[in-house]
Amino acid sequence: METTKGCYIGELRADQTVTLLAAIKQKDLRTKQSGEPYVSFVLCDKTGEIDAVKWDMTEAETAGVGEVWKFRGQIGTYKNKLQLKIERLRQATDEEIDRADFVSCSAYSPDEMLASLREIIGKVKDESIRSLLNLLIAENEPQLLAAPAAQKIHHCFAAGLLEQMLSMARVAERLCEHYGRLNRDLMIAGVVLHDFGKLEELEMDLHISYTVPGQMVGHIGLGLVILERYATKVGMDSWTKSMLQHLIVSHHGTYEFGALKLPMTPEAIALHYIDEMDARLEQTFRIIDSTPDEEEFTPWVSTLGRVLYRGRRP
Amino acid sequence: METTKGCYIGELRADQTVTLLAAIKQKDLRTKQSGEPYVSFVLCDKTGEIDAVKWDMTEAETAGVGEVWKFRGQIGTYKNKLQLKIERLRQATDEEIDRADFVSCSAYSPDEMLASLREIIGKVKDESIRSLLNLLIAENEPQLLAAPAAQKIHHCFAAGLLEQMLSMARVAERLCEHYGRLNRDLMIAGVVLHDFGKLEELEMDLHISYTVPGQMVGHIGLGLVILERYATKVGMDSWTKSMLQHLIVSHHGTYEFGALKLPMTPEAIALHYIDEMDARLEQTFRIIDSTPDEEEFTPWVSTLGRVLYRGRRP
Amino acid sequence: METTKGCYIGELRADQTVTLLAAIKQKDLRTKQSGEPYVSFVLCDKTGEIDAVKWDMTEAETAGVGEVWKFRGQIGTYKNKLQLKIERLRQATDEEIDRADFVSCSAYSPDEMLASLREIIGKVKDESIRSLLNLLIAENEPQLLAAPAAQKIHHCFAAGLLEQMLSMARVAERLCEHYGRLNRDLMIAGVVLHDFGKLEELEMDLHISYTVPGQMVGHIGLGLVILERYATKVGMDSWTKSMLQHLIVSHHGTYEFGALKLPMTPEAIALHYIDEMDARLEQTFRIIDSTPDEEEFTPWVSTLGRVLYRGRRP
Amino acid sequence: METTKGCYIGELRADQTVTLLAAIKQKDLRTKQSGEPYVSFVLCDKTGEIDAVKWDMTEAETAGVGEVWKFRGQIGTYKNKLQLKIERLRQATDEEIDRADFVSCSAYSPDEMLASLREIIGKVKDESIRSLLNLLIAENEPQLLAAPAAQKIHHCFAAGLLEQMLSMARVAERLCEHYGRLNRDLMIAGVVLHDFGKLEELEMDLHISYTVPGQMVGHIGLGLVILERYATKVGMDSWTKSMLQHLIVSHHGTYEFGALKLPMTPEAIALHYIDEMDARLEQTFRIIDSTPDEEEFTPWVSTLGRVLYRGRRP
Amino acid sequence: METTKGCYIGELRADQTVTLLAAIKQKDLRTKQSGEPYVSFVLCDKTGEIDAVKWDMTEAETAGVGEVWKFRGQIGTYKNKLQLKIERLRQATDEEIDRADFVSCSAYSPDEMLASLREIIGKVKDESIRSLLNLLIAENEPQLLAAPAAQKIHHCFAAGLLEQMLSMARVAERLCEHYGRLNRDLMIAGVVLHDFGKLEELEMDLHISYTVPGQMVGHIGLGLVILERYATKVGMDSWTKSMLQHLIVSHHGTYEFGALKLPMTPEAIALHYIDEMDARLEQTFRIIDSTPDEEEFTPWVSTLGRVLYRGRRP
Amino acid sequence: METTKGCYIGELRADQTVTLLAAIKQKDLRTKQSGEPYVSFVLCDKTGEIDAVKWDMTEAETAGVGEVWKFRGQIGTYKNKLQLKIERLRQATDEEIDRADFVSCSAYSPDEMLASLREIIGKVKDESIRSLLNLLIAENEPQLLAAPAAQKIHHCFAAGLLEQMLSMARVAERLCEHYGRLNRDLMIAGVVLHDFGKLEELEMDLHISYTVPGQMVGHIGLGLVILERYATKVGMDSWTKSMLQHLIVSHHGTYEFGALKLPMTPEAIALHYIDEMDARLEQTFRIIDSTPDEEEFTPWVSTLGRVLYRGRRP
Repeated sequence: METTKGCYIGELRADQTVTLLAAIKQKDLRTKQSGEPYVSFVLCDKTGEIDAVKWDMTEAETAGVGEVWKFRGQIGTYKNKLQLKIERLRQATDEEIDRADFVSCSAYSPDEMLASLREIIGKVKDESIRSLLNLLIAENEPQLLAAPAAQKIHHCFAAGLLEQMLSMARVAERLCEHYGRLNRDLMIAGVVLHDFGKLEELEMDLHISYTVPGQMVGHIGLGLVILERYATKVGMDSWTKSMLQHLIVSHHGTYEFGALKLPMTPEAIALHYIDEMDARLEQTFRIIDSTPDEEEFTPWVSTLGRVLYRGRRP
Repeated sequence: METTKGCYIGELRADQTVTLLAAIKQKDLRTKQSGEPYVSFVLCDKTGEIDAVKWDMTEAETAGVGEVWKFRGQIGTYKNKLQLKIERLRQATDEEIDRADFVSCSAYSPDEMLASLREIIGKVKDESIRSLLNLLIAENEPQLLAAPAAQKIHHCFAAGLLEQMLSMARVAERLCEHYGRLNRDLMIAGVVLHDFGKLEELEMDLHISYTVPGQMVGHIGLGLVILERYATKVGMDSWTKSMLQHLIVSHHGTYEFGALKLPMTPEAIALHYIDEMDARLEQTFRIIDSTPDEEEFTPWVSTLGRVLYRGRRP
Repeated sequence: METTKGCYIGELRADQTVTLLAAIKQKDLRTKQSGEPYVSFVLCDKTGEIDAVKWDMTEAETAGVGEVWKFRGQIGTYKNKLQLKIERLRQATDEEIDRADFVSCSAYSPDEMLASLREIIGKVKDESIRSLLNLLIAENEPQLLAAPAAQKIHHCFAAGLLEQMLSMARVAERLCEHYGRLNRDLMIAGVVLHDFGKLEELEMDLHISYTVPGQMVGHIGLGLVILERYATKVGMDSWTKSMLQHLIVSHHGTYEFGALKLPMTPEAIALHYIDEMDARLEQTFRIIDSTPDEEEFTPWVSTLGRVLYRGRRP
Repeated sequence: METTKGCYIGELRADQTVTLLAAIKQKDLRTKQSGEPYVSFVLCDKTGEIDAVKWDMTEAETAGVGEVWKFRGQIGTYKNKLQLKIERLRQATDEEIDRADFVSCSAYSPDEMLASLREIIGKVKDESIRSLLNLLIAENEPQLLAAPAAQKIHHCFAAGLLEQMLSMARVAERLCEHYGRLNRDLMIAGVVLHDFGKLEELEMDLHISYTVPGQMVGHIGLGLVILERYATKVGMDSWTKSMLQHLIVSHHGTYEFGALKLPMTPEAIALHYIDEMDARLEQTFRIIDSTPDEEEFTPWVSTLGRVLYRGRRP
Repeated sequence: METTKGCYIGELRADQTVTLLAAIKQKDLRTKQSGEPYVSFVLCDKTGEIDAVKWDMTEAETAGVGEVWKFRGQIGTYKNKLQLKIERLRQATDEEIDRADFVSCSAYSPDEMLASLREIIGKVKDESIRSLLNLLIAENEPQLLAAPAAQKIHHCFAAGLLEQMLSMARVAERLCEHYGRLNRDLMIAGVVLHDFGKLEELEMDLHISYTVPGQMVGHIGLGLVILERYATKVGMDSWTKSMLQHLIVSHHGTYEFGALKLPMTPEAIALHYIDEMDARLEQTFRIIDSTPDEEEFTPWVSTLGRVLYRGRRP
Repeated sequence: METTKGCYIGELRADQTVTLLAAIKQKDLRTKQSGEPYVSFVLCDKTGEIDAVKWDMTEAETAGVGEVWKFRGQIGTYKNKLQLKIERLRQATDEEIDRADFVSCSAYSPDEMLASLREIIGKVKDESIRSLLNLLIAENEPQLLAAPAAQKIHHCFAAGLLEQMLSMARVAERLCEHYGRLNRDLMIAGVVLHDFGKLEELEMDLHISYTVPGQMVGHIGLGLVILERYATKVGMDSWTKSMLQHLIVSHHGTYEFGALKLPMTPEAIALHYIDEMDARLEQTFRIIDSTPDEEEFTPWVSTLGRVLYRGRRP
């Protein structure tokens, strides 16, 4: 019996005849020189994307961006890239669709990551901080298991936010061992709270986009509001709350990158560097991995303002 | 019968013998070449400040910065400035002190300003916005009647925040008449809310200083938290709240000046300019007024990066 | 009888056969795969633009960019946009062309706007300023009735400069009522003079472009030179002239945006903000209006460095 | 017979008794610990400045800053610097004062420099440019023989403007020989015109200060207005005038340093670099010369953001 | 007998049938609407580039970017540009290829330029500097005769580095005559050394690219290392070496443009301006020359952030 | 028997009579109102500094800045600070001086730190890197045991460079455990090499100052030259050398902070953050420790552009 998904886009090769479910990322009506219309698509699943073309309008008219359809056709090449010449298509039914097929996800198990994070939180000594973090995680578990950490630049996949939190928490623990004067409770709280507003800033369906509050208020402002809500619930004293608020508003490090305050405590300073370093390294390794082996340098990375060296890794 | 305050520092002239209450702004122990210690003071009341000196330590030892004392002595001059040679001093009793004597205040009646602001708020059509603004004002009335708008640069006196709010509200009303598409409700809400966090950012005793949350979170972050509290109380819908949050986080206009978001609605854009213009004009007129008539230009204003033209006002 | 213009581009719908006059904005020679050449056009009138194609060279060879021609053909669609398939074309005669059909214009009557501006100038008390402004307007009336305020960003249409002058003059009047210390004469003079150099900086035919002096000197420098000419004519004293020169050279507010001096008088400060705010609001409303109703945000506005919120306007 | 000036400040040594004319640069009233007032002065002539003190008020009361007085007293030292203990003083009469004693001047003869500049201008081929430059120089000769090029940073002495013009004209001639495509006429015109507005921007009495138009319009704006006046007088065509205007408005090179336009012609580009280089080298050599021989580095030069190497000049 | 190269791309005209050797700059596989593949090329030689198309895959499959092939076909036009319709093609043999045909080169003879530079170096008085420069040139002669000065912006052609060195050396000599205090030895050394690292930073085959050390260390760092090597060879004293190192590390003038130190000696200051001016003028004249005569302005030059005036050169 | 040093400045209290060796940091000649000269000193040892005064010139005349003298006198107070009233003084003999008394030093044993660093280097797997690091340390051991890491901002004490190297090496080891893809050999090499040029950039006698090469070339340039020397000695291949050079030239992270290249490898990125974070935390803790306990915030830290929170550390 044929499985529902058919096959994954990342595995397609030229000259195959295939049947598969794919999400429609883009759809353009075009006209042939003969004057007849045809449809050009970009299709995607969690393994990648492919151009597709339907040389007549039959069945294609009602296909909408963001929907999952079932396609049948031949894989050819156009401009050095694979292209699906669609012969038949129809919208997929809800039962046929497994959302997990269409969303790229962290390489680690979200459940295990959450368990590890909980364990780290469990060692927080300050009772009100520990309660707040535990409650925060408990009440936002489903979102946390799914949310990305950014739209495009780093950890931009399901559970990316959780993956970055956990990685940063582990780095914070190591640094607290080395720099004995750093307060571990504040460091762990900072790691969990600093980007928590992203749960309300970004939404992820078949791709990651900004919510209206995300666009107009941003994750730092939303994070402050979330903290306020939970600080009230656990009865946190105002001094501790100020310290946590400071970690949220200062973690971007400089005003031009969106910090409301420059980091003014050792913990805020360390949090800023851990955040930057972890995001930058995740991004760097991902870009290096997606550059062909034979290239010495990656393509220009506009968010970094440079190319990266990808060659012979020692 | 002599009044308690005695006389005001702004009215002192050389060669007087005076008795007055004054706040101690600064106190330094110094040593004469003879090796004996003496005390140098800066004294102030709401009309200005004066240097003072006590040539021996008698009675001066326990005087603390921030306290109000009663001084008796002669006015001389030193380095072209008036100087009080203190003969006797003692701490003032609570009954002798009228705090209003030591704090400079808006030239307008705080009560009348508040009444005018209430009237303007009364015309807000959106019920949840009007309720929120009214409640905000009702529950923070005493603070609002006293708070300054800034530590140093503009409206840095008691009720300065209220004075700027009212001035901006009046400008906003005039602009709404001219630019008919601006939403008056949002404009008025923006005027009242954008700097409301300053109530928790600054504190004013004998001079204006930052609170710990003010230093570490800032009035934009504190304003978001205050809005959250009142939005919950009046049951404001989340779309309207987002619009108001946006006015708070964007009113500084650019990231490097502390905006979390650039203004993205016509009202946020207009609010930013009204805020800037009102603060800049208040500052400009105040600096011009404090420059001697015979000067063509004011001294260098470092917060503006320029001198101002003070000469012949046409 | 058929009117000369035929129909407006903004009203075209697919599957019509049309005859219309249109200006040629762009013309490209292309080659079909068969090796035969064809011509691709962008046509425009004041209501918008449309792609057009002529599948052979007949009659199309001599068509030049900037000319108005008469086109006959069918409206189809290509890449989701309307496209005119040209069947016949010929150059329009001078009698057929009404230039007003091809240039977008202020929504307000230029004559009425000029009358309103004259009325406002009439209330200027300083005689030499009033004479200078009146003379300036009298001797540049035709240009003023036609000139745009900018090439691309705001008020980029015929009489746009006048529209912005009048809008700013009205705002200036309202602010002078509120800020009683602002000198109304200088404010009105600043409003009229600050961008007057644009009459020599920009030229508008079928589209707006920079003149050679506009590119190489700019409207601030050209404005100074114009002021010099008129100040001599009306015998203005040098102090008043300096005040007016200052309004021109400082109105961009900061050096990096082209100010020669930072605003140093209350009037120069107010003028800068009025100018900024009016331009920004005109631009904002125009971009919002040109964004489809169903979109929550406008496309990226590169001159503002942000998207604008277009959604549910309250 | 004693000369009028007496001696120069630059030649004073400790333990002399001297009588000299000096200009009063600063005057402060101070009070001794005994309560009696005394006067502290800074005196100057073209060779330097010296602190002075008059231990009682006799004769000193009416001395005003900017006046030249005759002083008699003893040279001592205070805080490692020479100090004149004034015994007697009286205001100098007009006949006693030779202004040249109080103003530092170019090391070159102003008359000879002007003659050289005229010769260079004489070789300009374009008749209207040559006429304009000649007329400009003829009608502003006295000012040009006296004006400094800047208030503080470079060529800040009488005839400094002329000295820099001539130096730049000679460099321009050499570069025109090397870069054969540079237009010599435009280069010479640019050299003469680019800073001509400084004649109206700065005024020099006993020290250099800004005029009101200088502060509020600046030498670029004033230069445009001067050019306009002379271009009318010599009937220059508008294209040539635009080229000259461009040289004036672009010579600062970048917007943040006050250029209205970036240099867009080879001549404007070269003019910018010649101007920068000449000013920087004059400043550098002057600072190096005023640093003691035994120092390897000069003190911090805040206008350059660095120290300069002064050591062993090879 | 047919010459090897055939003809140059810069001389091609429409409707010719041609046979020529050309280097392959770009190669793309495309698919016709019929589904059949074809190949699109960009071909180049030192005189320019041309698009080319081969409508089937015969013979084209193995053609690689960077190789020189022999092409035969017809010149047509496509999108207003010439296009070669390839009929036959085969790889060129080594004997057929004259590399000089494919690389654009300085307009001056490299050998003569080198001789001139040697003569200038010969006049350096300091023996260790003269030895170092002579040795440097002697041991790097072949590279110097070929190397470009930059990848894209200025002097981007074979012997471009040498051309800029010589031009700068001549300007330096003229300036040393004018500014008599500049040390000629240091100036000439700075001219030769400041960009010497480019020999290891860039490599030039059929186009100019960065080497791995060029990308990761840059010509300033590489230049320091080269200087170290030669300073050891000629036994230069450490003080002189420091002066030369300073010229290398400071010649970019400001930190944001890659200087390690701001120029701190008169020679370093002059070197910076000579370098900037020479590069900017070469770029300017080259862009002006490549703009059609009828255009008043050049296209936007992104590396300069402006258009250039190309019109009527006086 | 009295020890040579006498007592330490950090332990002095008012009203003591003391005899001690101290270094002269500053010396000023002043004049009493009576006209008689006296001498004002700033004295220091490794525990701090103190003002001192000698009311006549006896014995004080020849005392020079940078020398160690023996002082006897009384501790009083002046302007709230301790002051030594010198009764007798004479220059100390070489035998009396223990340089270690006058230079502040790392809190850790330099020898133990060096041993720890050697152990970490011993685990480097790449033979040429390990040899180079070992040789570098072996041949620069005395300097390394003494050198500071910076003149003012962080680790500005003897062995400060070594302290920072070791701290960074330990952080690097922990991060290599967490980020498994980071190459440990390159990380350790980067930690040791990135600031090695500081051995030649700074010199430390009684205070830290820049050498001439330090001022004019800087530690990045000097570090490249040192690496070149040692790479030649151990015969390192050019690829590995490029990787190490990149770590040196990129570790400042951005051009404006003196990087020649932006970090382009994961190791260079991590090195930059480790360096920044370690320096910032050392500085932060040191400033916090030197702020009085009762202060909530530290004074303004100009190198950080902020105050730090010093209050209640949780």
